[in-house]
Parts: sequence; structure tokens; C-alpha cells
Amino acid sequence: MDLFTAESSPLQESRRQWVPPRPRVLHGPFHIVDESPNAATDTVPSSDVHKAFKHLKGRSAVQLLAASSNGASHTNGASSGAATKDSTNGHSKELPSLRIGIVLSGGQAPGGHNVIGGLLDYLLERHPGSQLIGFKNGPGGILTKSFMDITEDIMAEFRNLGGFHIIGSGRDKIEKEKDLEQAASVVKELDLDGLVVCGGDDSNTNAAVLAENFAAKGLKTCVIGVPKTIDGDLKNSQVATSFGFDTACKVYSEQIGNLMMDALSAKKYYHFVRLMGRAASHITLECALQTHPQAAIISEEVHQQGKTLADIVDEIADIIAKRAEEGKNYGIVLIPEGLIEHIPQIGALICELNDLLADVTTDVDSHDAVMTRLSTANLAVFEFLPASTRQQLLLDRDPHGNVQVSRIETEQLLLQLVAVELEKRRKESKFCDNFAGLTHYFGYEGRCSFPTNFDAAYCATLGYAAGALVAGGKTGLMATASSLDKPCAEWKVGGYPLIDMMCIERRRGKDKPVIRKALVELEGPVFTAFKQMRSKWAQEDCFRSPGPIQFSGPNADGANFTLALELNSNQPIQIS
Amino acid sequence: MDLFTAESSPLQESRRQWVPPRPRVLHGPFHIVDESPNAATDTVPSSDVHKAFKHLKGRSAVQLLAASSNGASHTNGASSGAATKDSTNGHSKELPSLRIGIVLSGGQAPGGHNVIGGLLDYLLERHPGSQLIGFKNGPGGILTKSFMDITEDIMAEFRNLGGFHIIGSGRDKIEKEKDLEQAASVVKELDLDGLVVCGGDDSNTNAAVLAENFAAKGLKTCVIGVPKTIDGDLKNSQVATSFGFDTACKVYSEQIGNLMMDALSAKKYYHFVRLMGRAASHITLECALQTHPQAAIISEEVHQQGKTLADIVDEIADIIAKRAEEGKNYGIVLIPEGLIEHIPQIGALICELNDLLADVTTDVDSHDAVMTRLSTANLAVFEFLPASTRQQLLLDRDPHGNVQVSRIETEQLLLQLVAVELEKRRKESKFCDNFAGLTHYFGYEGRCSFPTNFDAAYCATLGYAAGALVAGGKTGLMATASSLDKPCAEWKVGGYPLIDMMCIERRRGKDKPVIRKALVELEGPVFTAFKQMRSKWAQEDCFRSPGPIQFSGPNADGANFTLALELNSNQPIQIS
Repeated sequence: MDLFTAESSPLQESRRQWVPPRPRVLHGPFHIVDESPNAATDTVPSSDVHKAFKHLKGRSAVQLLAASSNGASHTNGASSGAATKDSTNGHSKELPSLRIGIVLSGGQAPGGHNVIGGLLDYLLERHPGSQLIGFKNGPGGILTKSFMDITEDIMAEFRNLGGFHIIGSGRDKIEKEKDLEQAASVVKELDLDGLVVCGGDDSNTNAAVLAENFAAKGLKTCVIGVPKTIDGDLKNSQVATSFGFDTACKVYSEQIGNLMMDALSAKKYYHFVRLMGRAASHITLECALQTHPQAAIISEEVHQQGKTLADIVDEIADIIAKRAEEGKNYGIVLIPEGLIEHIPQIGALICELNDLLADVTTDVDSHDAVMTRLSTANLAVFEFLPASTRQQLLLDRDPHGNVQVSRIETEQLLLQLVAVELEKRRKESKFCDNFAGLTHYFGYEGRCSFPTNFDAAYCATLGYAAGALVAGGKTGLMATASSLDKPCAEWKVGGYPLIDMMCIERRRGKDKPVIRKALVELEGPVFTAFKQMRSKWAQEDCFRSPGPIQFSGPNADGANFTLALELNSNQPIQIS
Repeated sequence: MDLFTAESSPLQESRRQWVPPRPRVLHGPFHIVDESPNAATDTVPSSDVHKAFKHLKGRSAVQLLAASSNGASHTNGASSGAATKDSTNGHSKELPSLRIGIVLSGGQAPGGHNVIGGLLDYLLERHPGSQLIGFKNGPGGILTKSFMDITEDIMAEFRNLGGFHIIGSGRDKIEKEKDLEQAASVVKELDLDGLVVCGGDDSNTNAAVLAENFAAKGLKTCVIGVPKTIDGDLKNSQVATSFGFDTACKVYSEQIGNLMMDALSAKKYYHFVRLMGRAASHITLECALQTHPQAAIISEEVHQQGKTLADIVDEIADIIAKRAEEGKNYGIVLIPEGLIEHIPQIGALICELNDLLADVTTDVDSHDAVMTRLSTANLAVFEFLPASTRQQLLLDRDPHGNVQVSRIETEQLLLQLVAVELEKRRKESKFCDNFAGLTHYFGYEGRCSFPTNFDAAYCATLGYAAGALVAGGKTGLMATASSLDKPCAEWKVGGYPLIDMMCIERRRGKDKPVIRKALVELEGPVFTAFKQMRSKWAQEDCFRSPGPIQFSGPNADGANFTLALELNSNQPIQIS
């Protein structure tokens, strides 16, 4: 027995063997049934969206219904699109072999391997002789024709495990006419019946562009999207959640819970924790519900209320001062990484800095040169920032000369400003206790962890559904699983038109149809739940520690609070 | 059902109900038997140690043996010390009630609550009517007579959970004559039969001082130590491991494993990870065996080989350059937080800086002033450091004016220097690939996590043993559990004299008897195992991901590789 040289841990070995539960409908024969055309869509696609997607417009959402169920009467077999195959699927009736490509796009999210596994299961079970082609290192792999065959032998190494490394991921977009031509030529050459794209809002917008393009060219290749992002900001009425969000939040909540117990034991530190989530604060919000911190800043609220950095600093300092009166000089503050961009005054400052820095004729590298050129309002904001942040704003620029906002360590920034504010109060005899802070950034650790049982089952279902949708000749849909508040066996499975999630946004000076990012809804059930509790959590020690993700036993199968609240469930969600 | 307002997570609830396994000998009646006096000790205590501990010298290690076992013939009941009670313990024979105090000392380590729980179990089961007194916030709570009664009602909230917050911890030492008098007066006033001290090497040295002092004063209060430190540097021939090490390493290894899968998926970053362990690198070494990184720096090796910072930077750069030749521009580098102090040239620099900075008559706050005063050799080292580190060395000083070495972000330092070195090689056309690095510090997250089943059982056993040793009138011992490579039922339980772990070290200009810190042994089985594998791990992608700690199922009960290798076990350790 070799103790430590084996390349897999016992848990890796054991997870590979695990078989995720599967919705009942996917166990037997099923039909793909169009939803009634007047089913609600998330946006009323403007004529501009329809103009950009002439071949996708008018397509329905679909559901997979057991072939023996009542829904069978609505069976819509070879519906619109390039479909030429019978859309009834079943073990009893073997269907022609298929060739499907899959690509992973953007940042890693736990569960990606299971999407591929679910898709492979579909092909192996229902279309013997099929071929699953994995494009390597993201959409760029389509353009360069870099791919590999994914067989069960290969897949077995990755089932229920984290990471995207079976084929890798990448951030290329296929948007330029030249690239669209190349992609069309590659899928034609590879004779692909379908292409499955796992990605966030941008990548799924791109999937719709590909679907439209292939359809316009008369290619048979259907394009199906799968909602992936740990940030949780790709969701809508028909897409309950993006995969990876559940796992990532649990990884971060484990660490935050540990820090809380440390804060409570040592009684001398405030921990300022930055969490992932640049556009939306869903992760911070879920982690707050999981752990009950003293403060959790939600970017969307800051933006809506037009809060200044000084407002936020003041609020945190107030909490710390009030706790100090009760002898409690410790606690936890959660901060979404995107916060700084959502503070209107900082946004204005960055905007002016970008203009100044882009003006290559002036030397504004030096602190003083910038100070003399900034407008009075922005100068006041700039001077409020700690020296280290001012330096980051001036020196860290991207290739276009823009300030690299994502490089700013917001947790450091806030900690420094809070310390300054408390020092000020001390001089005014309004605060007379110790304040000591530590900072943390929980980010990369959550992107490739072992998926929770929920994410593992959800992803396998989405992958399986994607295969079924391709076989049914459906294109331009996102694979969906719904009724997620019920046990997995009862989940509904289907597809939802990508263009029904779209709206027109101005990007780089052009109107563009894009999938809308789902931000935290300030009137929604999740933020409302947080708002009801936060002043209690600020003052009292209600620390909650979720502990490490469990894969077996009674604590294995629960899903996150965000999902439960959004699905109106008053019970914790259990998939089995 | 309230989804998120309950202050406990389901896993917290569930862990509280769990009953850790217990060595068989603790289930029935047992004797406390002296080991033969010629049993090996870890040091041959010098006459100086014996001079300092006149009342403790000559005491034997002891074992708890089942009353019915053969060992009974060696029974040594009321042996040396203040013991006046029968040392045979059993359910069948109720013993007088006891009053025992417990104190947690130093940094948090997972399992502390279970030591207290084990001690309480001992008292409840074998000495009805006893009282367990928890001193609050560390040894200082003894001096200020700040304490609470720990009843089963209170204890039940904390069993198998992380943190030290049931009574808190602290870093005070009871060393001055005045404090020793005060401690003696308090334990006398509280009529304590025993005082149990959970701590690291320093705190257990302090426990021996207290034991000696109480014995010298003729007090009945026995003092028993319990080995606590996540750093793993309190161990010897009779103490296999300190509690908390197993859990902390697993928490860090989970995160490192996640980063590895991210590195392997994104294929564009080197992650430089700083881990806890200032004096010893056991954590870094165990995490390396668990995860197979590209490089793991072991302070003890750096020190022994007299490596310079440039040597270390060169070695890392060599690995990166060699991997780049195979197109692999990603990986993981593990760094113990104490590294910088173990590099001889940096030690010399810091020494001179401390002298310079202590000289208040000279203004050496400015960079230039320091540059002109440093010796040539130290100036060269200083100039090699990145600007941010130079600034940290000059500005961050402790109240004594010393450089705050622990504030230096060694992972940042190494990343910056490696980037500079690779840039240099690029100019010499020896490196022509991309290099991008990210830094992480995994520290506080590991100190208060839910203890593993191993740590939970080990701690409960040590607490139970501590109670038995007090009841047996033993003092100046550390509670021990051995044969840890066997299932918990077969563990041996006993006590080992604290002074047998001691040697004389020069501290602050004085010879002082102290418990020797256990550093990584460069000829030992753990480092040897790492040495055999590291070049393979550097070059190939052998990434291993241990995943989150499991509490039930087949992956729940294993202990760490360090322990297995040191116990010569060729099987993974399973406690059940």
C-alpha cells in the first residue's frame, strides 16, 4: 500500500464511483414537448433581438415528458429547426448515433465534469456508437480544431470531481464574421449534430449567436447552452440557478464559519473577507445567510442607494463601536469583490482617471500630476483613499490603459479606512477600544472544489438534457432543470430559448442583444431575509458554522438558502 | 421551519450528537501503573533541569491498564506525589468527587472542546458530584480568578465542534514569583485537585513550572498538560502528535487541492501559498504529501543547508522554466510562514536592522539612512529584496522596536523575486514563456474548524486520561495516547513526565529549562518520503486533491500521513 504516492485521494476514488440521482423522466422513454407559446418569457424580446436572431425567433421552450404520461398528446416531434430525428427517446428504441461537441467557457465552476458525464451517459444509453467530442481550452478550441474524443474510460476519471481540466476552458468569444465562418466550417467538417456550450451570460449569448449562425447557414448543428457560473448571476424564471454557485458558496461558508469560531475564541480580531462576485453579490448574500456575519456589503444596495465609500466605512465603524460598548472587539465583515465599481463616486473617479491615463501626451504617472488635473469632486474622493489604493489606481493598468479595478484589494481598502475612522472617533472620545483587523480573499479555492451532491446531480441532469435536446433537433435553447425544491427524482427537465433571456444593452458604444445578468433583487426574498436579520447579527454573536461539504450521511444533500428562498420553499432543499 | 435564522447549521447539530470512539481501557475499571524507570526519555534531563524541578524529578511515566489485565501486578496506586486517592478507577467503585480546573493556552486548535468534554465525561462517569471549572481566556483567568462551572448542559453545545470559545484562550504566562503565588492561592481557594493545561511547548513548560510550584508548596493540586498546536511541533517518543495538526492540515490540503484543480484547468497561474508554521514546517510537509505540489519549501532544510534567498528563488525559477519547456505554465508552491527567519542571511540582516532601529539617536526611518549604515554583506541582501519587503522591514516594528518578521508576506516576496529572476532569464533568452502568479495565505481558517474524527477522538481520550491522572494523584505529566496506528479501541493511554521532554535553552540571555520544539527531521521518514517524490511532482502533474473533511462514510476516519509515516505504518491510519 503506497501511502502518499498514489495520485488520487481516497475521496477522489470514492466520488468517481458515486452515481448521482437522476430525474425520473430521464430513466425511461420520453418525448420533447413544446411549451404553450404564451408561456412567460423573462424579457419581451424587442424587435431588435428578433432582428439579430431571425432563425431562432418564435421557438418555444420545451419539456421532456415521460412517453407514457399525459403530456404525450402534445408531442412535437420533428419540430422547427434542423431536426430530422424522432424526438421520442427510450431504451427500447435505439436511435441513430450522434456526434456532439462540448466546450467549457470562462472561469471554472464545480460540476463542469458532470455536465460532460451526463451528456456522455445520454449518448451511451440512447444512441450507441455516438461520439462525444470535447473542444480543448474553451471556444478557441473550436476555431483551432483542437479537440479530443471523450470515451467512458476517460470520463470515469473525472466524474463528480472538480475542475475543468478534462478538456480545459478558455475565454475566447466567437463573434467576428471570420470566426463564425471558421466555426461553421469546423462543425460541418466534424459532422456535428450538436454543440453544447457551458458558460455564463456572455458565453450563452455567444451560444445564441452560434445557433443563429449555424441555422442561417442551414447546418444541422444544434447549439445548446448550459448555465455555468459560481457568481450565480445567470438565472431567470426558467433557470433556477447556475451550476457551481451551490458548491462555491459552501466552500466559502465553511472557511467563513471557521474564521467566526476563531474570532469568537480569540476575541481580538475583525476579519474583513472579500468574496468572488464582480457584477452581482449573490455569493456574499448566500454566505451571509449561511454564517451570520456582523456586516455583509451588497453591491446592488450600495448602488441603488447611491452610497459613498465614506457611508460604507461609517456603517461598519458604527457596528464596531456599538459592539465595543459591550466588550466585543471581534467580528466578520463580508465584501463582494465588485463593490468598488458599484459605488457611484468611485465609478466617476475611475472614469475620469481612465480618461486622464489614456491621454498619452500628459505625464500623469506621478501622484502630483494626477492631483492637479482631477475635478474637485473626484479629487476629494481620491484623497479619501489610502495611499496604497491611490497607487493601485495609478499604476495597475490593463493593456488599454484602463485602471484595473479587479486588482484593488477592497477588503484592505475598507479595513484601512475603518481603522482611520475609528482613530478619528478615538480622538473625539467616541471610541476607546482596541481595533485589530485581518483580511482574507476567498476566491480561487471555490472554483474547482468537488461539486456538492446537488451540483453533481444538477449538472449530470443538464448534460443529459442537452443531449436529448440535440437529438430532438432543438437549437438555441438552454438546458434546464426545474422544481429543484423537490427531490431530484421529481425534477422537471427541458429547454428554454436563449433569446427569451435577452435584452438590448449598450456595450462599447453599440447596442447589442445580450443575456441579462441577474443581479441581487433588493425586493426579492433573499435580500429581504438578510435585511430582516442583519441588525441582530451585527450586534449579537449569532455565528453559524456550516462546516465542510459532506457527501454522505444526513448532511450531504442539501442545497443553498438562495435557491430555497427563491423557490419559495420553507424547507431546506434535499435532493434525495 | 426557519431556514436561516437558527444559529446552528445542520452539521453543527449533527456533530454535537456524535460520540467519538474511546480506547477500550477507558471503558472499564483500570489501574494507573508506573512504567519501568529505565524507559527511554527524550532528553537525558541535565542536572540543571532537575535543579529547577526538584519535586518533579524522578517521577515515572505511567500507563492506564485494565484492572483485570496482567499489568495489574505492577499496580502502583498512591505513588509519588500528592496523591491520596486510590488509583484504581472503575464504574463499580465510586470514587470521591473531585474539583478540576482546565485552561486553554495560546492559539486555537481543532479539538480543544473535546479535551474538556473528555475530562467532563471522566468526572461524570467515575466521580459523581465533581466540579469542572473552566478558567476564562487563558492562564490569565487563573490569576484573575475568572472562571465558570462547566456542566453537561453547557458542554453539549460544544462537543466535536471547533474553536476555544467555550471558555476562551489567552497567551499569558504564569512565571513571575508574584504570579506563581497568586496561582497557588487561587487553586487553594478553589480547592482544586487538579489543573489541566492545554497548550504548546511554552504552555506545557509553564505547566511543569506550576506543577513544581504547587508540589513545593505542598498543595494537593496536580497539574497535567495536554499537547495542543496545529503546527505539530510538540511531539516526541511518547507523544505521537499534538491535537489540531490533523484537522488543520486537512483544511489547508482541501484548499490547496482545489487550487491545484484550478491551476490545471486554467493553465495560466502559479499559486504561491503561505501556510502556518513559524518554527517548524510540519504543516507544509504534510500538505505537500497530501497534494503533490511543484515545490514545497521546508525551513529546516533551508536552514541546515545555509541556503540564501537567491538559492530558493533560483530553485523555484528552475522548476518553472523546466515546466515551461513542456508547455506547462502553472503550478503550486507551498511556503511555511516561518521561512524567512530560517534563511541565515536574512536572519543576519534582521539582526543588524534590529540593532540599527533600536538606536534611537539615529534617524534610520528613511531608506537611504539604512542603506548607508548596513554592513556590506547585509546591504547586498537588503538590496535584493523587493521594495515592499524593504518597507515592511523598516516600518513594521513591534513595541520593542524589532522588525515584525511575521508580518512579512513571504509568498508575495518569493513571487516578486521569482518574477524578477524569470524576467532576467528572459533577457538572456533562457526563458520565453508567460509567468503569472497569485498568492494565498491559509492560516486562520484552519485553527477553529470542526475537528476530524481523529482529532475529536484523540482529544476526548486525552481529556479523559487527564482526569484519571489527576484522580491518581499524578502531577507534572502530559496526558498521552499511543498506538495511534491501531483502531481507537486499542490505543494505549497514559502520562509522560513533562520534564523528560525538557532541555536547557538560552532565552533572553538566560539558561532556561524548556520543552524542546520538534522540528522537521531531515533524516526522518516524513521528509525522506517527500524528498523521494519531489522532483517527480515538480515536473509532472501529479496533483492530488484530498477534498473536504468527511465525518461519515468510508472517508471519515483516516489520520494524516505524517503520523502514519512516523509510526512506521504502511497502511493509512483509520481510527475505527
